[in-house]
Amino acid sequence: MTTRADCEALDAKDPLRELADRFAPGEPGTLYFDANSIGAMPVDVPARIEAHLKEWRNLRRRGWSESTWLDAPKRLGAKIAPILGASPDEVVVGDTTSINLFKTLAAALSLRPDRPRVVSQAGTFPTDLYVVQGLKTLRPEIELHLVADGESIEAAIDDRTAVVYLSQVDYRSARRLDIRKLTAAAHAEGALTVWDLSHGAGAVPADLDTANADFAVGCGYKYLCGGPGAPAYSFVARRHQEAVKPALAGWMGHANPFTFSTDYAPGAGMARFVVGTPSVIANAIMEGAFDIWAEVDPAQVFAKHAALGDLLIALTKDIVEVGSPGDADERGGFVALRHPAGAAVVGALADAGVVSSFRPPDSIRFGLSALYHRYVDMWEVAVRLRAIIDDGLWKAEKYKKTKTI
Amino acid sequence: MTTRADCEALDAKDPLRELADRFAPGEPGTLYFDANSIGAMPVDVPARIEAHLKEWRNLRRRGWSESTWLDAPKRLGAKIAPILGASPDEVVVGDTTSINLFKTLAAALSLRPDRPRVVSQAGTFPTDLYVVQGLKTLRPEIELHLVADGESIEAAIDDRTAVVYLSQVDYRSARRLDIRKLTAAAHAEGALTVWDLSHGAGAVPADLDTANADFAVGCGYKYLCGGPGAPAYSFVARRHQEAVKPALAGWMGHANPFTFSTDYAPGAGMARFVVGTPSVIANAIMEGAFDIWAEVDPAQVFAKHAALGDLLIALTKDIVEVGSPGDADERGGFVALRHPAGAAVVGALADAGVVSSFRPPDSIRFGLSALYHRYVDMWEVAVRLRAIIDDGLWKAEKYKKTKTI
Repeated sequence: MTTRADCEALDAKDPLRELADRFAPGEPGTLYFDANSIGAMPVDVPARIEAHLKEWRNLRRRGWSESTWLDAPKRLGAKIAPILGASPDEVVVGDTTSINLFKTLAAALSLRPDRPRVVSQAGTFPTDLYVVQGLKTLRPEIELHLVADGESIEAAIDDRTAVVYLSQVDYRSARRLDIRKLTAAAHAEGALTVWDLSHGAGAVPADLDTANADFAVGCGYKYLCGGPGAPAYSFVARRHQEAVKPALAGWMGHANPFTFSTDYAPGAGMARFVVGTPSVIANAIMEGAFDIWAEVDPAQVFAKHAALGDLLIALTKDIVEVGSPGDADERGGFVALRHPAGAAVVGALADAGVVSSFRPPDSIRFGLSALYHRYVDMWEVAVRLRAIIDDGLWKAEKYKKTKTI
Repeated sequence: MTTRADCEALDAKDPLRELADRFAPGEPGTLYFDANSIGAMPVDVPARIEAHLKEWRNLRRRGWSESTWLDAPKRLGAKIAPILGASPDEVVVGDTTSINLFKTLAAALSLRPDRPRVVSQAGTFPTDLYVVQGLKTLRPEIELHLVADGESIEAAIDDRTAVVYLSQVDYRSARRLDIRKLTAAAHAEGALTVWDLSHGAGAVPADLDTANADFAVGCGYKYLCGGPGAPAYSFVARRHQEAVKPALAGWMGHANPFTFSTDYAPGAGMARFVVGTPSVIANAIMEGAFDIWAEVDPAQVFAKHAALGDLLIALTKDIVEVGSPGDADERGGFVALRHPAGAAVVGALADAGVVSSFRPPDSIRFGLSALYHRYVDMWEVAVRLRAIIDDGLWKAEKYKKTKTI
């Protein structure tokens, strides 16, 4: 049976243990298990902001040409590529996950013009499905086929399928799909893949290049720690980049934006997936985290993340039902525990100094970060959860109104 | 003949003169005439950032429900609406100008499904044209008709025209189009309008509601002072909002995003024009400026802006040719002076402590802000420009490589 001392021993030999010092602490005594929603803040963010504000005050418009403002989408993309298993020239940062889903889905469809079908899952994160529904207002011939939870995705892919369009990780259970296997199944039918990595990237492998993935997008503010509402990113396999004429075309994706040509000429490679002016300060802040990502060994991150999740499950499985796969290879960035009054438990946890989150109907989510979580944090959260369940603290009236976003 | 003392007298009776103290000074001795590119930084931005960073560190994911992060698109839209001549429920903030052009153009086209024609000008800002070209990859039937500089736009609007799609202000000359007149001409043919206000909003009137405009977008980081790469905004006339099914659909535009429905149901009114997660810190910073905008009388802003431009033209017209209209009612946010070696003059001005910008072939642009410019600044820039032209300082070898973005 695991003890607190065992957890401390794991921390002592953790090769990533010193990274926690690179992130700012929150409220004293509070344990943050919400890396699936907002990752922690790197300690050097205030210094990076001050540097940016100085440029704003003093350089003003000269920042466009004399500073690094306009290079950020490609520079940040290159820094985050290794953790996605991508090449530096296959990723750019910018816009939101939803906008990038539109870009990549439209791009994938344009490469399979005679096929109407988009295969996804009913349990895919809703915004992903809304993006298809929005695109259908322009391309009514698109057929969105939703595979029910638990049914075979492979069986739904046919020779009319243009795109297999999936979340890597289920946002409720953390069940992780096999990108390599499903990409192979798509390719076998002549279809392409678009992956939403939001609940996986920075926590578990995507191995995009090894998996031969075609397109992917993801969120910058969860495990990647880019800050609330940070820019998202897009991945396009090198073999497809030059074939895409972007549906969302803007001056920052032009081959020569400052010649002010009337005609759009797509920039080389990933440049064309940039659209409008980048959010300079949001990128400056996100770079605080991405410089940490550029230093770490992805294999060490994934190994620690799996071990943290395995430990949390081992320590909590006799308290509440576990909703996430027990096998770390089938699990995404968080561990979901199930409770019929999950929102109330999340409220009671918050009062016990544990920030978690809830998704209907019964998922209590604990987002884990290999960059800043310690093994002993898993111990501590189990202790606090046990007290809440054993003593029925979650039954208090006030927890019926818990805000759980 | 105007004297420096005359300019000082104008400053003394300027009802907006105290607003300049709300903005941070830049380099000592430098005059910034680049409100057309990057507006000045409000002095309270650092305090707003610190408040946001505290929320990031301490609230983490609870910021989504316990802070004001998710309300920002509508809240900021309402604060900026008066300066656009719009109602508070007709504007939302978010994404970039290019993305918002796509949203509004697709929306306008969806309301005129049997008409293929989009009428614009060849001199419209290039990204606006690229957006149409990108949309054509999805809707190849769109016919983009470009009116040459100086030719009649009205004459190009016919009963096959769905949308008249224009920049309010020419980004090279500052020539301003008459939104009311051209909207009426479009409506007379059954067409709708999409206006890009980027080079006008915060400087000159748009009067969107009075003009009966249909759709508009604009940039948050020029005259509006939202910070480099700040979010943009979208305007949709109230009468059209409920009729639009967004082409760019995302969870933050859903009627009930946190019910996680599989089907997109557009939010009420402008809510549907929000797509992905808002950039929380970019909005927090922009609110520093938008709180100033919410305080000012737009009529005072426009009157002072016109007077600043008239004064700058009066003081410089015997030094170089004026490229902008002499009538303030026909001018946008900046004054363009013409010089065959314009980029070199911009370089020499920078060394003389004047930040301006250049657009080919010969436009030296001086972006004017009624919020922080003084009349005596117009005097000072004229003095420095005269020295550069009279002494031929711009002929120095080093100015041949001037960066002019």
